[in-house]
Amino acid sequence: MPAKNDFHGVIAPVLTPFGDDGNPDAVRFLAHAKWLLADGCTGLAPFGTTGEANSLGLQERMDLLEALAAGGVDPTLLMPGTGLCALSDTVKLTKHAVDLGCGGAMILPPFYYKAVDDDGLFAYYADLIERVGDDRLKIYLYHIPPVAVVGISVELVGRLIEAYPDTVVGLKDSSGDWSNTKALLDAYPGFTVFPGSEIFLLEGLRNGGAGCITATGNVNARMIRSLYDDWQSDRADSLQEEITNLRTTIQARPMIPMLKAIVAHYRNDSGWARLRPPFLPLDAGEAKAGIDELAEQYGFELKAA
Amino acid sequence: MPAKNDFHGVIAPVLTPFGDDGNPDAVRFLAHAKWLLADGCTGLAPFGTTGEANSLGLQERMDLLEALAAGGVDPTLLMPGTGLCALSDTVKLTKHAVDLGCGGAMILPPFYYKAVDDDGLFAYYADLIERVGDDRLKIYLYHIPPVAVVGISVELVGRLIEAYPDTVVGLKDSSGDWSNTKALLDAYPGFTVFPGSEIFLLEGLRNGGAGCITATGNVNARMIRSLYDDWQSDRADSLQEEITNLRTTIQARPMIPMLKAIVAHYRNDSGWARLRPPFLPLDAGEAKAGIDELAEQYGFELKAA
Repeated sequence: MPAKNDFHGVIAPVLTPFGDDGNPDAVRFLAHAKWLLADGCTGLAPFGTTGEANSLGLQERMDLLEALAAGGVDPTLLMPGTGLCALSDTVKLTKHAVDLGCGGAMILPPFYYKAVDDDGLFAYYADLIERVGDDRLKIYLYHIPPVAVVGISVELVGRLIEAYPDTVVGLKDSSGDWSNTKALLDAYPGFTVFPGSEIFLLEGLRNGGAGCITATGNVNARMIRSLYDDWQSDRADSLQEEITNLRTTIQARPMIPMLKAIVAHYRNDSGWARLRPPFLPLDAGEAKAGIDELAEQYGFELKAA
Repeated sequence: MPAKNDFHGVIAPVLTPFGDDGNPDAVRFLAHAKWLLADGCTGLAPFGTTGEANSLGLQERMDLLEALAAGGVDPTLLMPGTGLCALSDTVKLTKHAVDLGCGGAMILPPFYYKAVDDDGLFAYYADLIERVGDDRLKIYLYHIPPVAVVGISVELVGRLIEAYPDTVVGLKDSSGDWSNTKALLDAYPGFTVFPGSEIFLLEGLRNGGAGCITATGNVNARMIRSLYDDWQSDRADSLQEEITNLRTTIQARPMIPMLKAIVAHYRNDSGWARLRPPFLPLDAGEAKAGIDELAEQYGFELKAA
């Protein structure tokens, strides 16, 4: 298990369930979070892209995070996403996470305005850190240009580490571009870098990476964890091939609806398949086809809760 | 002036000033809004892209909007931007605007997730309308793909008009693509379409457009309004050329910092030049060069407040 404030291993961006009223369902959310930790996750990142975080309101995020802490999830294992477009609201969510004792916060760059440069992004993170004004704050930068469009350059990471070495401690690299992850690992030894997919888990570990923060951790943490634990063993490459194949099959369909369909199916709980607009559930036939493929090709099933 | 709940003419997306503490400055904001209406604006769109809306927090937007209403700005002339990524918070801001008596709300599509289709966006707007649940709600869709990336297709507009004819009443087209504006005007007569730039004002009016909602309305509303008022006169084409040239010169530099530099200069109020990260002010030399160019080439100056 990770030391306090020092994330390593397999971290799942927790799926966010919704009730039939369309509001987030804290009961299912807590149960899933606890199961993920039991299934092999070494930490949790509520409110990542996979968690439909950007479809959740400010108060909804704070309520859900409090439900995890109140429900007995160790907050030092939590790295919630707290990055919004607006500096002031990012400050609010980040303070809230720090005050709850969260081990870290995963923070997107402000992603609405596209014509911004590294100086502007540096000023944003610097203002954020000054306004939160709390030594307990540990920031994991969230680089996901395929979705956020606005990214965090290798150079900007270096400037932030230099200015705030005790606060800017890590990064999740969801660029899908191994050369970017490798450049970060090479440039900043000691900085905690998580590839955003288990496809790069082994290559990452061999180059000083910290593990992975991955959507499919919601359904396949145990297998991914076994590679994390045994990455120096003889079976590492074949394990990597296996988890890569499984991931590739899952992401052949829209990732978030597919993951929710898997949970709904194996938990026998159709409510889990709900998404909040602009996302819509997979149609039933498509969901079944995906679940059947995983079972037939890999013997995949979701382990008992 | 526009009839109640029926926007036409020249609408400025009001610049948002910040105090030296980095927080929005409601006093300067109100003064600027009143001056814009005196300078020729027929309506105001607080919290557009130009207003750094996506850098403002939920509570900050509500406080600023209340400051306008409390300060004597007729709320029926206001079309605030209320669209965020998260449905629940968009509902909150939109309800707040309706309850204040705003004539409309300008609503972005949810812009974080990129892999969404028209069905998902339709579900988002439909859920929003049902959750606000108020006949007074008048939505102006906000199509700005160069920034939001997620856009609103001509077909989606048609589906929304058909489903909610009394609620989805207009659109701001900031695509910068006249063929898209023309397609909307041709497809949906009676639907209120505003080009997002005065460059398309005359062409828009000749094709049934409603006027324009334009960033440069913050500094040049009087001249743009004169074209709106005289678009059927002999001088319309030369007026269009003049305002197009002025706009082109302003947007040769980063638009929002340049507009704030102009206001700061002519109001002799350096505080107006502040922006919130990720935006930064123009450096002083660049700002002066832009202001000088406008004065020398067009005799431009900001009219007295």
